[in-house]
Amino acid sequence: MIKYPNGKQMNFQSESKKSKNKDTIYKNRGMDFENDINISLEYFDGAGLAIITKRPTPINVVRVDYTHGAKIIDAYFEKQSTTDYNGVYRGKYIDFEAKNTKSKTSLPLHNITPHQISHLEKVIKYGGIAFFVISLESIDKVYLLDASYVISFYKSKERASIPVSEIIENGIEIKQGYMPRYQILEAIDEAYFHEENN
Amino acid sequence: MIKYPNGKQMNFQSESKKSKNKDTIYKNRGMDFENDINISLEYFDGAGLAIITKRPTPINVVRVDYTHGAKIIDAYFEKQSTTDYNGVYRGKYIDFEAKNTKSKTSLPLHNITPHQISHLEKVIKYGGIAFFVISLESIDKVYLLDASYVISFYKSKERASIPVSEIIENGIEIKQGYMPRYQILEAIDEAYFHEENN
Repeated sequence: MIKYPNGKQMNFQSESKKSKNKDTIYKNRGMDFENDINISLEYFDGAGLAIITKRPTPINVVRVDYTHGAKIIDAYFEKQSTTDYNGVYRGKYIDFEAKNTKSKTSLPLHNITPHQISHLEKVIKYGGIAFFVISLESIDKVYLLDASYVISFYKSKERASIPVSEIIENGIEIKQGYMPRYQILEAIDEAYFHEENN
Repeated sequence: MIKYPNGKQMNFQSESKKSKNKDTIYKNRGMDFENDINISLEYFDGAGLAIITKRPTPINVVRVDYTHGAKIIDAYFEKQSTTDYNGVYRGKYIDFEAKNTKSKTSLPLHNITPHQISHLEKVIKYGGIAFFVISLESIDKVYLLDASYVISFYKSKERASIPVSEIIENGIEIKQGYMPRYQILEAIDEAYFHEENN
């Protein structure tokens, strides 16, 4: 997913309200999706349930003008070498990447970097919870898909894409609503704390 | 601790090698300290022990020039609202902030924000491991100090400073060497996995 500079993310807050409006809901789903995840995480934080935050966009700063405070005048966006989101919930380390696709048939994996795959492998190795939150815009559904599934798929067919049917079959649907926008924690409970819940 | 833009951090890699040299070891301890933490974490990652990463410096991007690629021409550094470092080790969520002081008597708390204190409180609440890595330059020693200790101190006397004597008394010394530069995991084991080790 494209990393948006923090300045823009702040603007997205107003977008999110608009996105509740049917007229604008299809305007920019990619941006709305990332923003809806962010406001969902803010909700979980405010509700005292979990603290999961978005990593800032890495920026390579080349030149800073100190004549009026510290103004960055030459810098470039860098690719996130890890994932977009991480934090802690129910004592476990949570790490996930958000992806959305308009495709009716599959989620392309070309914008998932080898660094991200290796990062997610390590998270699993050290006992953390790693997954993807995937928005299937064609059917207006969002799924939690365990990272191990994406990793094995990525490794078996690099740069390929995961069929939508397999995401639905192997993923857990993340219920959508108003508060929270996405029931991500509910999906995490079902996927990783199932025994404890029964 | 001042947040350094990524571009600079890359330059610090060469600094770090110099910092092994007695002649330059006192040049810029603050930068060396942050860089030494970063290379220690890289070592733990490479050794297959833990994945703990530094959050990128949040930057508010105001204007981007797209005439030659995407060049940021107007942006400003933002204060980290969380902490500098987080990740996963032995199945636990790890979150810490690095602070260094030249003072022989105390570590000033004025550059720890209320946001960071509240973030660390949440990490503890949700079952994560939260602490400070404190470099006492006057005695060339580094300590792990549990966040709960800093939080209660911060709340009882906001903007005050923690006496060096209390850091030594309540903290766990982080052994220093070459590879890894700082034995942070060893200190975490002693502080949080003590029973499991015995």
